[in-house]
Amino acid sequence: MGKLEEEFNAYRTKMNDRIMATANTNIKRFFALDTTTYAEGALDVKTKEMLGLVASMVLRCDDCIKYHLGKCHEAGVNHDEINEVFMIANLVGGSIVIPHYRRAVEYWDELTQSA
Amino acid sequence: MGKLEEEFNAYRTKMNDRIMATANTNIKRFFALDTTTYAEGALDVKTKEMLGLVASMVLRCDDCIKYHLGKCHEAGVNHDEINEVFMIANLVGGSIVIPHYRRAVEYWDELTQSA
Amino acid sequence: MGKLEEEFNAYRTKMNDRIMATANTNIKRFFALDTTTYAEGALDVKTKEMLGLVASMVLRCDDCIKYHLGKCHEAGVNHDEINEVFMIANLVGGSIVIPHYRRAVEYWDELTQSA
Amino acid sequence: MGKLEEEFNAYRTKMNDRIMATANTNIKRFFALDTTTYAEGALDVKTKEMLGLVASMVLRCDDCIKYHLGKCHEAGVNHDEINEVFMIANLVGGSIVIPHYRRAVEYWDELTQSA
Amino acid sequence: MGKLEEEFNAYRTKMNDRIMATANTNIKRFFALDTTTYAEGALDVKTKEMLGLVASMVLRCDDCIKYHLGKCHEAGVNHDEINEVFMIANLVGGSIVIPHYRRAVEYWDELTQSA
Amino acid sequence: MGKLEEEFNAYRTKMNDRIMATANTNIKRFFALDTTTYAEGALDVKTKEMLGLVASMVLRCDDCIKYHLGKCHEAGVNHDEINEVFMIANLVGGSIVIPHYRRAVEYWDELTQSA
Repeated sequence: MGKLEEEFNAYRTKMNDRIMATANTNIKRFFALDTTTYAEGALDVKTKEMLGLVASMVLRCDDCIKYHLGKCHEAGVNHDEINEVFMIANLVGGSIVIPHYRRAVEYWDELTQSA
Repeated sequence: MGKLEEEFNAYRTKMNDRIMATANTNIKRFFALDTTTYAEGALDVKTKEMLGLVASMVLRCDDCIKYHLGKCHEAGVNHDEINEVFMIANLVGGSIVIPHYRRAVEYWDELTQSA
Repeated sequence: MGKLEEEFNAYRTKMNDRIMATANTNIKRFFALDTTTYAEGALDVKTKEMLGLVASMVLRCDDCIKYHLGKCHEAGVNHDEINEVFMIANLVGGSIVIPHYRRAVEYWDELTQSA
Repeated sequence: MGKLEEEFNAYRTKMNDRIMATANTNIKRFFALDTTTYAEGALDVKTKEMLGLVASMVLRCDDCIKYHLGKCHEAGVNHDEINEVFMIANLVGGSIVIPHYRRAVEYWDELTQSA
Repeated sequence: MGKLEEEFNAYRTKMNDRIMATANTNIKRFFALDTTTYAEGALDVKTKEMLGLVASMVLRCDDCIKYHLGKCHEAGVNHDEINEVFMIANLVGGSIVIPHYRRAVEYWDELTQSA
Repeated sequence: MGKLEEEFNAYRTKMNDRIMATANTNIKRFFALDTTTYAEGALDVKTKEMLGLVASMVLRCDDCIKYHLGKCHEAGVNHDEINEVFMIANLVGGSIVIPHYRRAVEYWDELTQSA
């Protein structure tokens, strides 16, 4: 596992554990929904993770982008496919997305090179 | 064709024609990109249109949502699939998306009933 | 009930019924969360509805604003209090909020005059 | 004065008067800032109104766009200049801006044809 | 005072001083409004700071979240209350808020443990 | 060249080179548009860069702000002018812009002091 991925995962896991320790019932339900929404259904996991990625990119959330890039990689999204998701995000969200796209490419490179 | 779809298409076509009549070269290039980005490629048109839809929903643009709903319908997205796209949009974008989701369902109903 | 309120409620109810008729389980859970989150808890309903209102205003969603204005009115938020919520929304969200603030004042006037 | 402009101005004036009648001191100060910020200074009014327009377009506020289009027109922004502002807005904000751009062109046409 | 709070406050104070040294009159007025808006009024400081917090969370501004968390803590917002504000922010703003919520919990923990 | 500027430019150049090495045709076209849009035209480069800056500030993208601050500095925007752009951004975008404004002032100081 590469360095960016390791740091991201470590903080995410630490804080999710911390949150679950004292969160109220509705927060726990919201986190549960966040998991089940991306499960295999009428759409397969690969498609759903690309949907999560493009939504995260146009809303410009670096951590969300990293998370869904990891899941896209696990689900077998290839280089040409991820580039087309990136293009849709840049087009719809505009050039304001580009700095997040740069960091996304850096993270994706790490994911695909550490495999 | 239903009433909502007809109104949306008529205004969109009228203004796109107007824009092309006087736009500068860069605007024309941007509109061209907006077309070619959703063409069949490493990802098929159906997947790309769902990506365009979810991005439009989390950014809460009713006209963009209508446009991609029309394209999703043409590309064969079915009821269960569109509901899963809707859910990802609601989850990622939050309850602020719900009013746009209501209008999306109304438009989708018209599209699927007028077929 | 004033005209704006009546129109808003009628469409909202019609589409919520329509959604519940065909939504998947996760969407139904999300809508349930949207209800329970604003229930009396450590914070009272009045405070929660003002929180919902200010969030809706800075995110500039007219329908969400109308919904929470109605709930704030039911919960007894008075004229001076609502003005302070409006000010926080304008300050944090900026002058881009002003057109939504205008429509909010029109709706609030209807709510308070039809009482 | 064209129909779109007339409707926009009438509602804006009516509600601004209504707001001033009952707003608190901070809201009045905020509205005063909204006026003085666009006054001639180190930058001329024409430049400031183009800045207000591009900010309104990327934040996708139709009423704000109309307001600044009116002011740009008064300040002498010409056809080629407004097209370059439109292009920057479309580029930075992305294709999600396009529906607002369509309505902006319609309003600009009315402004320039009714002159 | 914990480490995160110390760093945040130091940079904020340094840059606010820097800004005041050369800002124009309108910027100074805007900063003054940013202070008076949260003063005791028809709503108490505690309520206003929770309003500022939820607005900052749905707009996803980490520094603004830290600032209002500090003020909420000073105003006596307790654990159960802050969790309900967090839930409203997550619900309205969607899962895109979660990374900011993680950092908010980390900062809140520091505030409440260093007391 | 100051430290902030050096770091920003180094990462930006590295990742743009990386992106160009494997990007698809549409991404390359989008990046080309991002360049030509700010070229001298009906509006001069200085005006266009201020438009790019204000758009980046209200959308709260630190990297985009840095980029356009650099270009504004090259184009001869002076202290009083940049303050008026900052004020329009704060006003339209709201107090949520302030943390980005702080970082913008820090970067601008570096640009103007290293000259």
